Amino acid sequence: MKIAILPGDGIGPEIVAQAVKVLNVLDEKFELETAPVGGAGYAAHGHPLPEGTLALAKAADAVLFGAVGDYQYDGLERALRPEQAILGLRKTLGLFANLRPAILYPELAGASTLKPEVVSGLDILIIRELTGDIYFGQPRGVRECPDGPFKGQREGFDTMRYAEGEIRRIAHVAFQAAQKRDKRLTSVDKANVLETFQFWKDVVIDVHKEYPDVTLEHMYVDNAAMQLVRAPKKFDVIVTGNMFGDILSDAAAMLTGSIGMLPSASLDANNKGLYEPSHGSAPDIAGKGIANPLATILSAAMMLRFSLNRPEQADRIENAVKKVLSQGLRTVDIYEAGTTKVGTEQMGDAVVAAL
Amino acid sequence: MKIAILPGDGIGPEIVAQAVKVLNVLDEKFELETAPVGGAGYAAHGHPLPEGTLALAKAADAVLFGAVGDYQYDGLERALRPEQAILGLRKTLGLFANLRPAILYPELAGASTLKPEVVSGLDILIIRELTGDIYFGQPRGVRECPDGPFKGQREGFDTMRYAEGEIRRIAHVAFQAAQKRDKRLTSVDKANVLETFQFWKDVVIDVHKEYPDVTLEHMYVDNAAMQLVRAPKKFDVIVTGNMFGDILSDAAAMLTGSIGMLPSASLDANNKGLYEPSHGSAPDIAGKGIANPLATILSAAMMLRFSLNRPEQADRIENAVKKVLSQGLRTVDIYEAGTTKVGTEQMGDAVVAAL
Ligand SMILES: CC(C)[C@H](C(=O)O)[C@@H](O)C(=O)O
Ligand SMILES: CC(C)[C@H](C(=O)O)[C@@H](O)C(=O)O
Repeated sequence: MKIAILPGDGIGPEIVAQAVKVLNVLDEKFELETAPVGGAGYAAHGHPLPEGTLALAKAADAVLFGAVGDYQYDGLERALRPEQAILGLRKTLGLFANLRPAILYPELAGASTLKPEVVSGLDILIIRELTGDIYFGQPRGVRECPDGPFKGQREGFDTMRYAEGEIRRIAHVAFQAAQKRDKRLTSVDKANVLETFQFWKDVVIDVHKEYPDVTLEHMYVDNAAMQLVRAPKKFDVIVTGNMFGDILSDAAAMLTGSIGMLPSASLDANNKGLYEPSHGSAPDIAGKGIANPLATILSAAMMLRFSLNRPEQADRIENAVKKVLSQGLRTVDIYEAGTTKVGTEQMGDAVVAAL
Repeated sequence: MKIAILPGDGIGPEIVAQAVKVLNVLDEKFELETAPVGGAGYAAHGHPLPEGTLALAKAADAVLFGAVGDYQYDGLERALRPEQAILGLRKTLGLFANLRPAILYPELAGASTLKPEVVSGLDILIIRELTGDIYFGQPRGVRECPDGPFKGQREGFDTMRYAEGEIRRIAHVAFQAAQKRDKRLTSVDKANVLETFQFWKDVVIDVHKEYPDVTLEHMYVDNAAMQLVRAPKKFDVIVTGNMFGDILSDAAAMLTGSIGMLPSASLDANNKGLYEPSHGSAPDIAGKGIANPLATILSAAMMLRFSLNRPEQADRIENAVKKVLSQGLRTVDIYEAGTTKVGTEQMGDAVVAAL
């Protein structure tokens, strides 16, 4: 089995190195091949998603991705900016199902800005559609405003859209995920305003007929943002579109106070996937050896479970992470008085030792 | 001066009645005229925004609005549902600037789900563009998918758009509001993905040239959702589009834990405005006499300040509200042990007494 390793920018290389270390000590060996992506791709080959990198990602059974983005690339035109790499990989590989758990580890309850009773034991799964919606809809651009009071002025515009089959396939993923958990699914829409999401809601209701054991609830996106702050533990699985999912999954991750702990998986129709930490490239702390590698290590565990069909290895890694937490080891982002502050490498080594 | 009173549905009539009581005891008398809106408009005249109601709102100097929506109207086709009334009023009256303060009253610090140190003293102002964006953009609907892998299937679609002049006028409102506060403005966009919001960002940067005393920062909407949870007090004024503003202003309101306290103003280019509480119609508690009328009373204060040019009366009402809070009076939504639980009418009477 072949894994494409795409470290990217900022803290990406440091944290991915720790996940690679973990993969290398498993009994079974995988073929790992590394390629530059994001700003590093641009620096090496003039494009954030170089041809060779894309070819590798296509050929591999799974992709382990660090993070992209750094200050020196901010001035580039949009098509060359680092984030185009991740958008391009999602679209080209057809990674339509983004799974983002928001879990609060009991040892880290204090890291949240929310009161402990509101978040302790939090365990929700956000499923975000990742290849449709206003992220990719055409037409888009800047044009002359065709009508209304601003006619003749310049205007920016984009197209939001979801086809029936696109909604059906993500709904199936969500209902099936709910079946494996507490059997409750919240579909987040804005059906009171948007045609796209009235349609979304209608299709989700139709798919629900195949999953009578799952309780389905519909919630407007503004209310969902409120309920995540008010009573996040009431959710089990949330499914929503690309744009709303971008916002809500980040808000949910931040509820835990420990976004440095949260992995993510982006899957295609055959469970091939790209795995990346939920946090970004954090260029301000890059190279200092202080970044938290656990989200990336846990992303590697998700990869073993979903794409490489090695659930027992995934369990081992997840248990090793729990063990280092219970040993009191903390990177600076989750450090509290009374625990032991460690750097990126030490944390990676501790997970390897716990294995 | 004439005020249109539109109580609406659910708890709307109860809470608006308290604000009317407050307006009636001010030294200066205003002409108040009431009309049905939302579900009540549909029940009375077959439309959520009856002609007479719209005519009254147009003729008045300001509109005091309760809330719309109730279970019995959920099954109506979209064009007749209660929320069409508020969308119609915003668009027809040109109420493009929505001002939503998120303030945590020191007495209510315990009501928040966030830790006191994270939210105590919170005082941010969210300015949401209210008549553009994907809320009103054409074309929209359900059609046959014209291209791509889902070609030929049905798809829902909407158009996001912002014209230059639309962005300019809301940016001016935001910069001027920041000038009266801590002189810091955060413009929230998704310029890394959306053409509309790259254009938004460019125009905001241009308008900034006229306000060199204000510090402007740009933030992606997903990051803004995170920072609201992580460190909300770092914000001063936030400006954003209609869709992102819908989500972020509700999240920000919920941070305070006391959305029953938060007013809002929606202004046109001449400071005519519609004033409404930030919370909804809460049909589950309607008619029980327990709803918190303070957000509506504070909305009336905003109305006196922005549309009726009576800032000293606005101050008086706001001080009266602070006084009843310091007297320990609480409706059930903000009740804590050690305070005195009161109903909707009692709370209104207490504000009148404090005046
Ligand atoms: C970098 C950006 C394009 C991306 C997105 O908006 O999807 C990021 O925020 C994410 O959630 O992975
Ligand atoms: C009722 C709905 C159409 C409305 C909106 O989305 O604008 C509401 O959520 C609001 O924020 O006033």
